[in-house]
Amino acid sequence: MKIQILLRKIKNAPKAFKFVWYLYLNKIARFSVLPSLLSVLGIKNFRSYLWRKSGCNVGKDVFIGWDVYYDVGNAKLITIEDEVSITNRAIVFCHRRDLSHYYKGDNYKNVPFIKLPVVIKKGAAVGTAAIIMPGVTIGEGAVVAAGALVTKDVPAWTIVAGCPAKVIKVLEDRTE
Amino acid sequence: MKIQILLRKIKNAPKAFKFVWYLYLNKIARFSVLPSLLSVLGIKNFRSYLWRKSGCNVGKDVFIGWDVYYDVGNAKLITIEDEVSITNRAIVFCHRRDLSHYYKGDNYKNVPFIKLPVVIKKGAAVGTAAIIMPGVTIGEGAVVAAGALVTKDVPAWTIVAGCPAKVIKVLEDRTE
Amino acid sequence: MKIQILLRKIKNAPKAFKFVWYLYLNKIARFSVLPSLLSVLGIKNFRSYLWRKSGCNVGKDVFIGWDVYYDVGNAKLITIEDEVSITNRAIVFCHRRDLSHYYKGDNYKNVPFIKLPVVIKKGAAVGTAAIIMPGVTIGEGAVVAAGALVTKDVPAWTIVAGCPAKVIKVLEDRTE
Repeated sequence: MKIQILLRKIKNAPKAFKFVWYLYLNKIARFSVLPSLLSVLGIKNFRSYLWRKSGCNVGKDVFIGWDVYYDVGNAKLITIEDEVSITNRAIVFCHRRDLSHYYKGDNYKNVPFIKLPVVIKKGAAVGTAAIIMPGVTIGEGAVVAAGALVTKDVPAWTIVAGCPAKVIKVLEDRTE
Repeated sequence: MKIQILLRKIKNAPKAFKFVWYLYLNKIARFSVLPSLLSVLGIKNFRSYLWRKSGCNVGKDVFIGWDVYYDVGNAKLITIEDEVSITNRAIVFCHRRDLSHYYKGDNYKNVPFIKLPVVIKKGAAVGTAAIIMPGVTIGEGAVVAAGALVTKDVPAWTIVAGCPAKVIKVLEDRTE
Repeated sequence: MKIQILLRKIKNAPKAFKFVWYLYLNKIARFSVLPSLLSVLGIKNFRSYLWRKSGCNVGKDVFIGWDVYYDVGNAKLITIEDEVSITNRAIVFCHRRDLSHYYKGDNYKNVPFIKLPVVIKKGAAVGTAAIIMPGVTIGEGAVVAAGALVTKDVPAWTIVAGCPAKVIKVLEDRTE
């Protein structure tokens, strides 16, 4: 199988080329209409497949919208559990400069990076254009509103919104 | 005419394929330099044409910037009146989960959707990267500032800004 | 050299076509994996090169992430000094409607534009999805947080965040 040989070659290629390949897979997931076309033809979760192929841990029945970017260079730090929804244009980041080591007169480019995992727990939902920062865990069933900037952990069964995101509602038990 | 036959075929194709086709038209409107090239050659409003072809109600002399996404699956719920400006990377959404039916322990994916129209009235302007949520009407001549998250109706002749957007200025009558 | 002839032709073409060409260069800088591939092969700063070719003043050793959009039609108003970092999906704008001339009943499309330069000083960093508005100068070594909307000048050696962006930290001298 030619494709399998190609894939094996890619697997053995240096990490750097892999990164470019993973970027390309993410590009397909973000902008191509192919995932939607496949979905119409009955092949669901093609975006989840592309994310997995480029290193993320992605569970079952995960919905991923268009133009969702994840930290391709640190994809192994990303865990998306079952039944999560990530809507359009959201961003998931796993690295940033450690600004606690940044002083007046320093060269920003020499400030060390910190890499931290992002975990989106079962059934949680990330809204349109929300930004998930490094180290954040989004609890089970939690909802991140559109446009939110999530800098801290989100407790399970809450709704958060704003820049930076704060809890605006704690979900209640069904009383019926 | 081959193109007309193709277009007729598309019109008769199942709704699902139409959705993919509409997504593709939106992709051209968002990322291609073709609309700008046509504009230079004297053919204005190509983006408006693409939006109309994919189901939106778009008036005359509407300016649409690059990478503006609208709710392709619910385009019929979108009305853009004459002389509206929608700047780069704005988002117009017409559906969301009805979180008033979401309780602790529920499966988010079973929460019902609500679909609500978005109306952008005559001469209104939507700023860069603003997000217009379902059900919102933006009043005549109103201005939505860059980066605003519009969750409620915007009164005519006002300027709104922020996340969520609030009125920051009421436009005055000309005194000259 | 065929390419050189083509480039000369483009140089002599009307301003309007140049604009489309510059948009295309920006499109490559924003979405192509080519800059990452070249970077892996040892050719750094390809995005800076594309920005320069389309009119921006870009210094040495500048990092530009994917999907960063600048005001292509007013690129000459943009100055990026040495060692600046501009992260993914940031936006740099140099023109806007002058709303101080906008009154109730006016046609928004007749409101005059103001065009103002944007300067990002040496070693400054612009975070993910931040929006830099016309006329802003970002001081030396300053850091703009992810998702910030920068409407005013950012003092040197400070960190700003929020919509609109405010100083959240003044960087201190090293005491060691």
